[in-house]
Amino acid sequence: MFLGKVVGSVWSTKKTDNLNNLRFLLIHPINLNKQPLTDVVVVADILGAGIGEIVICAYGHAARKAINPEDPSSLSLEAAVVGIVDKMDVDDSSEINK
Amino acid sequence: MFLGKVVGSVWSTKKTDNLNNLRFLLIHPINLNKQPLTDVVVVADILGAGIGEIVICAYGHAARKAINPEDPSSLSLEAAVVGIVDKMDVDDSSEINK
Amino acid sequence: MFLGKVVGSVWSTKKTDNLNNLRFLLIHPINLNKQPLTDVVVVADILGAGIGEIVICAYGHAARKAINPEDPSSLSLEAAVVGIVDKMDVDDSSEINK
Amino acid sequence: MFLGKVVGSVWSTKKTDNLNNLRFLLIHPINLNKQPLTDVVVVADILGAGIGEIVICAYGHAARKAINPEDPSSLSLEAAVVGIVDKMDVDDSSEINK
Amino acid sequence: MFLGKVVGSVWSTKKTDNLNNLRFLLIHPINLNKQPLTDVVVVADILGAGIGEIVICAYGHAARKAINPEDPSSLSLEAAVVGIVDKMDVDDSSEINK
Repeated sequence: MFLGKVVGSVWSTKKTDNLNNLRFLLIHPINLNKQPLTDVVVVADILGAGIGEIVICAYGHAARKAINPEDPSSLSLEAAVVGIVDKMDVDDSSEINK
Repeated sequence: MFLGKVVGSVWSTKKTDNLNNLRFLLIHPINLNKQPLTDVVVVADILGAGIGEIVICAYGHAARKAINPEDPSSLSLEAAVVGIVDKMDVDDSSEINK
Repeated sequence: MFLGKVVGSVWSTKKTDNLNNLRFLLIHPINLNKQPLTDVVVVADILGAGIGEIVICAYGHAARKAINPEDPSSLSLEAAVVGIVDKMDVDDSSEINK
Repeated sequence: MFLGKVVGSVWSTKKTDNLNNLRFLLIHPINLNKQPLTDVVVVADILGAGIGEIVICAYGHAARKAINPEDPSSLSLEAAVVGIVDKMDVDDSSEINK
Repeated sequence: MFLGKVVGSVWSTKKTDNLNNLRFLLIHPINLNKQPLTDVVVVADILGAGIGEIVICAYGHAARKAINPEDPSSLSLEAAVVGIVDKMDVDDSSEINK
């Protein structure tokens, strides 16, 4: 999984049917000591993450299982918020680049 | 999922049978504040995305589920348009690099 | 999927049994305006792609489905040619770096 | 799989139900001769890896199988510690960058 | 799949049960004309690849299928040697960076 900061939202009217009524966030991945290579990922969210919050995101089956636990394979998505971060301990002199 | 701009199309006559009659787009992935590392991805599309439109693309099972909801595993593809973007809000001074 | 140019072949005598009698190509991924980060991928091919041809390659289940449509999960491979490119239209002043 | 050093922990109260009671570590991936591009990955751990230890991490089904061998697909995670490293031999003048 | 050179081995006593009795190699991925971004991958091997040999490695299901053809999903691994390279032909003035 990766850490990311919620930086925005994205809306799509014309989309795959199985994605109706889902909320899609724009996530900026976080590295500890340098900027990540990819700076925006689109993820589904049902935990209610807000702008500026740090979240744990997962890819693939893990993402679908988070959004629809009963029928994950029914979804055309492969990234989702699986947790909103309360606290991180980093045993390092590292500062987090957000 | 990732954001991308439709920059072109690609045609192939000699291809895996299960890809017949599908439309393949060339997508330029979008980052918020810098250029992405990969600048072209080939994706299947049945939503009718046009040149210059911003789209949400998904990989793997999610892509196959978007193109053939009844029988996703019948397809030899792993990237597809799952939504055409209407609007993005980015809580940032970021400008989108297209 | 990604675009690549066929740049060579690779042979292996001592290999996983389920890969016997398959042809493995060396593919150089193509970006539109810059060099890709990875410059060689090994892919299986049953379409007969030749040196110098531009191909569409797929990963994972999609690759196995292209090589063995009847029993994709029997294969220990995760990259394959799924189409030989006839034509690309890029709505850009971009030139293709091969 | 990749090698990483355990550099911290992350806590989340609001998370996907199937992740309750799991421990999440922050892992710094290790390259031999240069810094890796991503410098933090979030992984689940049930082996009890401690800060500063070198671990082998796996992605996807492999990660879920390590955390819940009986029902891997029940989990919304895609990265986990699968081994704590005792010893590495590198046939190289390479030093390990941690 | 990717090409790599075997550069070492890694041992782990405390590991996921389903990985017992497996041999894990350290692989340096090979690019044709430049250094790869990741310079070490941990892979399982049952073909007996030796230090300095060039191998074809696969990820995900393909890797598990190579190590345990009868029951691939029983394994917590996602990278394996699937072939030891005898010969490569590269239609290029490229030299292989090992």
